[in-house]
Parts: sequence; C-alpha cells; structure tokens
Amino acid sequence: MNIYKSRVERVKVEMEKCGLGQLMVTDPVSICYLTGIEIHPFERFWAFLIRTWSENILFANQLFALGDTGYETVTMTDSDEIAKIVSPHIAPGKLGIDKTMQARFLLPLIQDCPDTKFVLGADCVDNVRAIKDKTEQELMRKASKINDDCMEELINFIHEGATEKECASYLVDLYKAHGADDVSFNPIISFGANAADPHHSPDDTVLKNGDCIVMDIGCKKDGYCSDMTRTCFWKKADQKYVDIYDIVLRANQMSEDMIREGIPLCEIDATARNHISAAGYGQFFTHRLGHFIGIEEHEKGDVSSANSEKAKAGMIFSIEPGVYLPNEFGVRIEDLVIVTEDGCEVLNKVDKNIRILGI
Amino acid sequence: MNIYKSRVERVKVEMEKCGLGQLMVTDPVSICYLTGIEIHPFERFWAFLIRTWSENILFANQLFALGDTGYETVTMTDSDEIAKIVSPHIAPGKLGIDKTMQARFLLPLIQDCPDTKFVLGADCVDNVRAIKDKTEQELMRKASKINDDCMEELINFIHEGATEKECASYLVDLYKAHGADDVSFNPIISFGANAADPHHSPDDTVLKNGDCIVMDIGCKKDGYCSDMTRTCFWKKADQKYVDIYDIVLRANQMSEDMIREGIPLCEIDATARNHISAAGYGQFFTHRLGHFIGIEEHEKGDVSSANSEKAKAGMIFSIEPGVYLPNEFGVRIEDLVIVTEDGCEVLNKVDKNIRILGI
Repeated sequence: MNIYKSRVERVKVEMEKCGLGQLMVTDPVSICYLTGIEIHPFERFWAFLIRTWSENILFANQLFALGDTGYETVTMTDSDEIAKIVSPHIAPGKLGIDKTMQARFLLPLIQDCPDTKFVLGADCVDNVRAIKDKTEQELMRKASKINDDCMEELINFIHEGATEKECASYLVDLYKAHGADDVSFNPIISFGANAADPHHSPDDTVLKNGDCIVMDIGCKKDGYCSDMTRTCFWKKADQKYVDIYDIVLRANQMSEDMIREGIPLCEIDATARNHISAAGYGQFFTHRLGHFIGIEEHEKGDVSSANSEKAKAGMIFSIEPGVYLPNEFGVRIEDLVIVTEDGCEVLNKVDKNIRILGI
Repeated sequence: MNIYKSRVERVKVEMEKCGLGQLMVTDPVSICYLTGIEIHPFERFWAFLIRTWSENILFANQLFALGDTGYETVTMTDSDEIAKIVSPHIAPGKLGIDKTMQARFLLPLIQDCPDTKFVLGADCVDNVRAIKDKTEQELMRKASKINDDCMEELINFIHEGATEKECASYLVDLYKAHGADDVSFNPIISFGANAADPHHSPDDTVLKNGDCIVMDIGCKKDGYCSDMTRTCFWKKADQKYVDIYDIVLRANQMSEDMIREGIPLCEIDATARNHISAAGYGQFFTHRLGHFIGIEEHEKGDVSSANSEKAKAGMIFSIEPGVYLPNEFGVRIEDLVIVTEDGCEVLNKVDKNIRILGI
C-alpha cells in the first residue's frame, strides 16, 4: 500500500472511533496529505469524500486537470451549483466536515441534505497528521537542519547599526542560499522593548547596546516546516536579563527533559509555567508552551493547560517558554521536538547558553 | 465621516436592499476594509457584526489587544466557547454571514441560535468592495505600474538556458527592488507545453527554441494587487502559434474596447469567447474571461457567461483570454481595467504585439 492509501486507512480508523461513516475533507493541505494531489483551489470547490463503507470520491473543478487520481472523480465547472452536484453523493445520517469548510459551500449543502446531520470531523484527519511517519520525520529534520545553519549565520551577521528589517531580509536570502523553498512564517526579529510583543513584526528599529535580540524563525523545505527561537544580547546584558534568560532556559530544558510517550501535554506546559511562576514571572509568560507543526507551521494540537491529551511517539511540536516585560524586553527559547517512546529528539542544535554578541 | 464609516454606511444600504438587518463579517480582509483594523486571526475568532437598527459590534480574542476601536467590543479567550459568547448578540430572523465563515464557528452558532435563519450575506460587503473609490484606484495604478516595469525587465532577462524557476526567482527580486511589498500570487512562468496548464507552477524546465513563454505575474503595493499576463516566444514561433496569438490578442482587444458602464459582464465574456470559438479554438479557452481584483488578487465578481451583472464605474477586473493546447503550448494575454462611464482605463501598458525573444 502506498503512503497515501495507508494514511487514508488510518483516517478511517479514526472515523470508526467517533462513529462517522462519511467525512468531507476540504482543507487543501489535508487533501494533499491524503492523496498526494496538491491543488490551490482559491475560491473553487475541492473536496475528498472518505467513506468507510464504500469507495472514496474526489470533487474537483475541471480546471484543475487532475488526470488519473486513482479515485472516482466528480468534476464541475465555475457555473455549476456545487451543492447540487455534491449532495447526491451524501448519505443520510452523520457527515463529518472540515473545521475550515467555508459557509459558501456549507450552507447550500446543509439545505440540500435535509436528512444529513453535519458535524465537525476534522479531528479524524488531524489526529493522523499529528503523528508523523518516518518519511515525515526525516523531512522535518532536514528543514530544521537548514534552520539551524541559517540561525548561526544570522547570529554572526548581527552588527552595530543593524535594523530588524535588515536582519529579516538577510535571513530570507540565507534560506534561499541554503536551498529552502520558502519561509514557514514571516521571521520575527525583535530588538529591546519590541521583544515584549511575542509577535512583533520587524521594523526599522536600530540595535542598541544592552538590547535583547529575539529571533523566531523558520523555513519550509520539501513541504515541511521548521521553527526555532533564540534570544541573544548585544554588547552587554543587565543582571535582570541574565536572570530571566536563565529562568526561561531552565523552563525549556525541564520541559524537554520530561517529554516521552504517555505524558499528558498539559503536564509539560505546567512544568514550564510553574518554574517561571515560582521565579515571579508567571504573568509575563502569556502564551501556551508549544504548538504542533509539520506541513503547516501551526497544526492542530498544542502543549497547553487545556490539552490533557497524552504525547504519542511521532508527534512533533514546539517547546517555547517566554517571558515578556512590557516596555522593557523579552526572552523566548524554542526548539522543535519529536516524541519517542522513552524521551524526545530535539531537532534544533543551536547552542542555548546565553550569548552576548558584539564583544 | 471617515472613509471606513462611509464604507460601513454603503454596506448598510446593500443590507437594506436584500432585507438583512444583521450581517456578521468574518473575512479579516473585509473587516480591515470596513474598520481599518488589520488582524491576522489565524484559527481564532474575529468578527464585525453590522446591524441596521443598532450599534455595530466587534468580536475579538483578547490576545489581539485592539485598544479603542470606536465600536462596542466583545472579547474572548482561547478557552471560551465562541458560540456561547456570540449568540446572545444575534437576533431572531435572518442573519447574513460571510461566504468564508468557517464551519468550526458556523456549526456551533447555528446550533445555539435556533430562531435565526443563516443566509449568505457577503455580497453586501463585496458589492461595495467591487466599486473602488478614488484612493483605491490610485493604489491599483501604482501596483500595476510596478508590475509593468518588472514585466519589461523580466522579458529582458530571459536568456538561453533559463529555467522557469530561475525566472520566477529573478522576478521576486525585481519586485523587491521596485518597492513592492510582496507578490500578489506565486508567479506563473511556463515554457512550451507547460503553458497548456493555465495554472502551471514554475519548475526546472529549460527554455527551448520555439517555446512560448507565458508570464502571469502580479505584486502587492500598499495593500493593493496587480496582475498581468504576457506571452512571448523564444527564437522563433511556428505559424500556428502566431495565428493563435493573433486570435487571443484580438479577443483581448475586442473585450477591452467594448467595456463601459452599463454593459453586462457576460457580454464581454461572450465577445471574447465567440471570437475564439469562430476561429475553431473555443474548447481550448477553458476559463472565464476575467476576475475582480483589489485588496485581494481574486475578489468577488467575474467576467463570465454566468454573470449578467452590469459593469459599473470604478469596478476593476482582469481581461485574460487564453488558448491552451494540451501537450503543445498555451497563450494568454491579460490586463487589468478600471470601468469608466464611457469606456475603461487599461492599467497595463506593456506592449501586446507579438514578441519573438532571443533574436
């Protein structure tokens, strides 16, 4: 069985678990994951109907020119009413739909299928996507290797008078030179007080002595994402900064040390959060500890107080504790990890010991 | 009245026309168009409820840190059930929702509002967005000017041994050098038989003598998009290619010549299509003649057989006839136009006469 068919079989197992006989996948990323067919449908309809009791069906605008997909393929044109074409293939009873299915397709379909109960069913795909197979793990290693190399070069590039935008632009060129296909998100490079906003966009701020430098960066390679954060300091670091850096680094290490198959994800979050809180900075760690990642930078699943799910071997997520002091500075230290049976593999190798640059 | 408030008033007029008292806008681009507030909500809820009988309300995750918006603002956290917070603000009767509203928010809201009839209502915003005001028209001219300049430089760059990917990458650098903020879509650069797929992604195909070169490119500047296609030939062009180029060019010109306020958009499509069909290639013109464009590369509205709406002054759309011969080649010629009272303004100035490059 090829890799795509075996992924579909894993989805069917999830469907059985939650009593779903039919599932309409409309997220183009998930369809590509399940069929190998990469389509950017824009405003057009593109769906993969998985049925536990029968053959699966692809629905596609004829513009997509799919060729032989190995599945029954129902085509449509721009002037067709989508619901009229799709509804004859929907059985009465429950139909799982993707969380991102758009109202323009969903509302008419609900109207045309009065005997069908529409429920959110994306978890059946997302739970499978959350466990990366060996091929995917290797691709994730490859993307993170490029990210490591570019982080080192970026750190070496930082210089007197540098601006955030200049560093971000240099990084994008580095990714290209290292064979990455794209960034996995717009780089966050924040100097000094800008770093108090975890999602700051690089601007024309010039580096000053004593600034922290938060670099949250990632690239895409062969369809898979990397994501890492390092925080350095320019010329010098106040004792307070050094102390907070140590607290965040320790939170990062404690979290990574405890990861193994079977541990509830909320416990990992709690360990980092309790450590930061005990040091008096709990209120300044304003986000969850980590998010799942793979084909997309943010995939379903997170390492947060709200997620009591247990870690499974093959899950890949970020561990990114941070402390953000408004109008002062911020520190975040982030790695990606693959959960294994008895621990985890940390994908990022860039040194996490405190680094004072420019001296 | 500021520009945003006046746009909201125009939306309310559209709402009255279709009997909608309440409209939930969830498209972040439309919310920004109507309020000036730019949020990338990712998987979080972000909505603007417009009510003809009462004040409007913004719904936002507290993470977005909106400050004073000038509107009543209802905030929520990541652990809240969105529908429980939103439903008390929804009145019985009809509620218009955005065509892109996601199932994850829509399905629970339908469940929590049993006395509300959910209908697609995005047209009330889209019809307003379709008519560009003077400020927007000027921004569209600016983006297309950059696109024109970069197209000329791209054409000059094409050389012996060039690959599609190399040209696409060169173009992205050109945009940057010319001050564009981003591409408005991934450039389509197709050599020879690849051009028979209108949406081909640039790959490592090397340019050969006699190839057509389809360049469908666009950039973003100050929030507005450009989009243009030119087709050239390398070293030589078979007579058949020349003939088809002439047919497509004539279809492009006939269409642009007939545009003026009041003409049904389907008639423009029919003119191009009839011309291409009369020449025997109708079945190879596989897409609509044009699409609306502005803040987004594809906005609501198209120039197709299905759209009998009449052109209005201020509408901006593409005119892009094409002929695609499978396994052989393709030709597409595309401009953006602004509809005026008595004609149209063509935004693209790059020469459309047939060009044989490399000689």
